Amino acid sequence: MKVSLIGLGIMGLPMAKHLERSGHLTKVYNRTRAKAADFEGTQIQVADSPREAAKAVDLVIIMVSDSADSEDVILGENGVIQGAAPGTIVLDMSSINPEVSKEIGQKLAEKQVEFLDGPVSGGEQGALDGALAIMVGGNSASFAKVEPVLRVFGKSVTYLGPVGMGGYAKLANQIIVGVEMQAMAEAFTLAKRANLDFDYLYEAIRYGLAASAVLDQKINNVKSGDFTPGFKINLHEKDLKNALLAAEDLGLSLPFTEQVRDMMLEMIEVGEGELDHSSLYKRLSGGVWD
Amino acid sequence: MKVSLIGLGIMGLPMAKHLERSGHLTKVYNRTRAKAADFEGTQIQVADSPREAAKAVDLVIIMVSDSADSEDVILGENGVIQGAAPGTIVLDMSSINPEVSKEIGQKLAEKQVEFLDGPVSGGEQGALDGALAIMVGGNSASFAKVEPVLRVFGKSVTYLGPVGMGGYAKLANQIIVGVEMQAMAEAFTLAKRANLDFDYLYEAIRYGLAASAVLDQKINNVKSGDFTPGFKINLHEKDLKNALLAAEDLGLSLPFTEQVRDMMLEMIEVGEGELDHSSLYKRLSGGVWD
Repeated sequence: MKVSLIGLGIMGLPMAKHLERSGHLTKVYNRTRAKAADFEGTQIQVADSPREAAKAVDLVIIMVSDSADSEDVILGENGVIQGAAPGTIVLDMSSINPEVSKEIGQKLAEKQVEFLDGPVSGGEQGALDGALAIMVGGNSASFAKVEPVLRVFGKSVTYLGPVGMGGYAKLANQIIVGVEMQAMAEAFTLAKRANLDFDYLYEAIRYGLAASAVLDQKINNVKSGDFTPGFKINLHEKDLKNALLAAEDLGLSLPFTEQVRDMMLEMIEVGEGELDHSSLYKRLSGGVWD
Repeated sequence: MKVSLIGLGIMGLPMAKHLERSGHLTKVYNRTRAKAADFEGTQIQVADSPREAAKAVDLVIIMVSDSADSEDVILGENGVIQGAAPGTIVLDMSSINPEVSKEIGQKLAEKQVEFLDGPVSGGEQGALDGALAIMVGGNSASFAKVEPVLRVFGKSVTYLGPVGMGGYAKLANQIIVGVEMQAMAEAFTLAKRANLDFDYLYEAIRYGLAASAVLDQKINNVKSGDFTPGFKINLHEKDLKNALLAAEDLGLSLPFTEQVRDMMLEMIEVGEGELDHSSLYKRLSGGVWD
């Protein structure tokens, strides 16, 4: 299977390297060509546009920042849609508003181009280690075709249903994680103010109904006050923004998601967007007695 | 060790039975004497007052409903404080405001009576099975003395520090669990409205950072719409009320805890207080498209 990868950022570049090693990678494209330097003069073609990148390959993988970038790269003037032959599969792995993914899928379907949305979790480290969790929506036959390629950098590859469902699964995940960060922040702020020992508290609650991956993975940040990421507030805010845009498209109100996003925006404004998302604890507890 | 147990409700009665079988139970007391019927005519004395129940025993265990009941039973006119000899240990296992526990502890200390607070989680089933999680605050030497007795109905018995810390651990636990219920409600409401299959979604997120005991234990309620408790909204609301009272005493604001409590009060008002706490999903999703 010939694969083209568009978007050589902190996620896309290591993914492209994994695909290169597995022998699938045929072409790459990046808006700033300098980021494709590693591939110049190799067997892999550095394309001049998404349109060129989409020609004469079986699968076009896209890893860009947000909904507008995906729309531009896929549907724009020199976009993938201009170059992809009927039967090509386009897989957008960016984390975007799934309602936008559905629109993109419809436009591509008019040209007999298959579309899958497949956002990931696991972050930069997951991309480097080839250990991403990949959540895919779209035609199940197309999913079956690309799944072996995704295993090259995916620890888990899950099929979620029609186009957009990969994105919705990612957003549901990010809602749960974001709200849980504030749950932990409130519980541990109360505990800190009451002089309850965090080690004792963690030991008392870690095996019961309050048990969670957030608690297990972030307890040391809360204990130490070291909020080196991990997963940045900046990125989590973007995901929650997309969750709220999707919710709005669906006529839904998600009050805690909205408030967590506002808290994260507030942190970005005061220059804390690069901290780990567990720093919601810093935000809540810091203002109280420090 | 001679043990007296005050409060034969849905938690206290099965706890008393476990203590009876282990040979520790000497006396019981309940405000409505009829609830002590099982013990009339046995070796176990049915006391006429908390004061009588506290005489000539090593340990007085209290399991009542809320802060005011604990204060009344322990510090009231015919209260434990009137009957307990110096050196007696009083262990309040009710779920109350830990700031009230601290006041009770100070009053008892004036009479050389030791006080421990030891709220539990695990509910009625945990009490019946002798599988409660017990979180104890107070003097560590007194904790060491009573720990073997608590193992009679406790699956885990954890020491949390000075008086009140048992209660704070319980409240921290209940804050996390309550807020997580709303996290799950928002994620799954978005998923439902987007027609994302719940089985697919659960499979995609259950091993990642969104993993939690709440998700694992409540996914079937959310899938089926059956909110048979489990742990009732009525009881969770009471715990969050105590968390907010404690937070207020400490000069803290806990916004999500407060809102979850308000949501639960709203459910109680419309007659849904007996549902499982995972029914926050029903509250959020039900109003949207049913």
